[in-house]
Amino acid sequence: MSNGNAPEKASLVVLSGDMDKVMAAFIIANGAAAFDMKVTMFFTFWGLKAIQKGNPTGKSVMGKMLGMMNRGGLDRIGPSRLNMGGMGRWMFKKMMRKRNVMPLPELVRQAREQGVRLIACDMSMNVMEISKEDLIDGVEIGGVATYIAEASESKFSLFI
Amino acid sequence: MSNGNAPEKASLVVLSGDMDKVMAAFIIANGAAAFDMKVTMFFTFWGLKAIQKGNPTGKSVMGKMLGMMNRGGLDRIGPSRLNMGGMGRWMFKKMMRKRNVMPLPELVRQAREQGVRLIACDMSMNVMEISKEDLIDGVEIGGVATYIAEASESKFSLFI
Amino acid sequence: MSNGNAPEKASLVVLSGDMDKVMAAFIIANGAAAFDMKVTMFFTFWGLKAIQKGNPTGKSVMGKMLGMMNRGGLDRIGPSRLNMGGMGRWMFKKMMRKRNVMPLPELVRQAREQGVRLIACDMSMNVMEISKEDLIDGVEIGGVATYIAEASESKFSLFI
Repeated sequence: MSNGNAPEKASLVVLSGDMDKVMAAFIIANGAAAFDMKVTMFFTFWGLKAIQKGNPTGKSVMGKMLGMMNRGGLDRIGPSRLNMGGMGRWMFKKMMRKRNVMPLPELVRQAREQGVRLIACDMSMNVMEISKEDLIDGVEIGGVATYIAEASESKFSLFI
Repeated sequence: MSNGNAPEKASLVVLSGDMDKVMAAFIIANGAAAFDMKVTMFFTFWGLKAIQKGNPTGKSVMGKMLGMMNRGGLDRIGPSRLNMGGMGRWMFKKMMRKRNVMPLPELVRQAREQGVRLIACDMSMNVMEISKEDLIDGVEIGGVATYIAEASESKFSLFI
Repeated sequence: MSNGNAPEKASLVVLSGDMDKVMAAFIIANGAAAFDMKVTMFFTFWGLKAIQKGNPTGKSVMGKMLGMMNRGGLDRIGPSRLNMGGMGRWMFKKMMRKRNVMPLPELVRQAREQGVRLIACDMSMNVMEISKEDLIDGVEIGGVATYIAEASESKFSLFI
């Protein structure tokens, strides 16, 4: 899929914090990277959970509430359906392990190893009171302009 | 990002009626317009809420029920998570105001000022018994063919 | 929208199992096919419901549970909002019929007649214990590489 010159690009906006959608995003990103595409993922709103270290909390009361209700970290993510207070998450994970599907933390690690750019949306970080220290290593911070620049050069761009 | 000739295009389908997703759609649309791209947004199903004046109601019993449960207007939109009977909407708005994020009605106004084309899906209007008078000024009405034509000429096209 | 040579392509990932989103996916796919585009739809996770015959059940206890809670078949799909235990589905269907909108099984039939490629994600089938016999006729099975190959040649690619 390469034309022998500049590598082709793909870009993903990840707004969702649902496990199934975040996994799909990383599977597509890793798949594209395996085809030598230059992949950029932009994490915004609930999507930031996928690149948080664990328990970010804002300093204001509301920041703390948002943090509490939206606890970050990959182990906290449930699927978009059947979540049922964590039950769905447990079952989903169990079935994935049984079927040898790479778990989310592995997918993230693989993305970083393959050079996928992970960009956190500055506005969302601001609103949700998430700081750079709350994010995993190697994450850049950027705004909508960064995304538009990548998207308009991408072979495909998805909103997840 | 312009090639000096015809302006580059971007297109968005907005099916979601969640505040965070609708805001993301307008932020991307406005960002692309700021790069001199020609942007078209297609509003379908719940996305129509973002371009409704306030309280559209169908004439049939079911139209009225759909209208009641899906009350239009930008002040009625809650986020995709943490909505909790309007509580999440209130908190989200408050944190956005505190952080100087442009509220949704401003984003819509800016989009119109920047010449973003707003198109309402005719089929969805029909099903949900929403008429042209229920929509804000400057909205065009179109169908899937209009979208396909724009999407196939777009540098990027997103489904939100 | 054709350049007189190879037909232009469009590709859709369908992860959602919500009736409104699945319908939108097929309406866009059929619209693009009507413009002589070569359309590929990739069904993953809950999206697989749209191409299942009816009541697939995994053999393990968890597979059975997932199957039960995520009963397949087009008649089982409710909208992303207002589902209210099937009430929204009933109302949505009734209003669509009243307004002469093509129901989902018709949209799927039309897609197949127009030569839209329907591909089921092998990893999701594996995790959710869905076998080829559970799927409607004419569905291919593929992985992320198949999607990346199509997406990077597509005029537009959407994640639904």
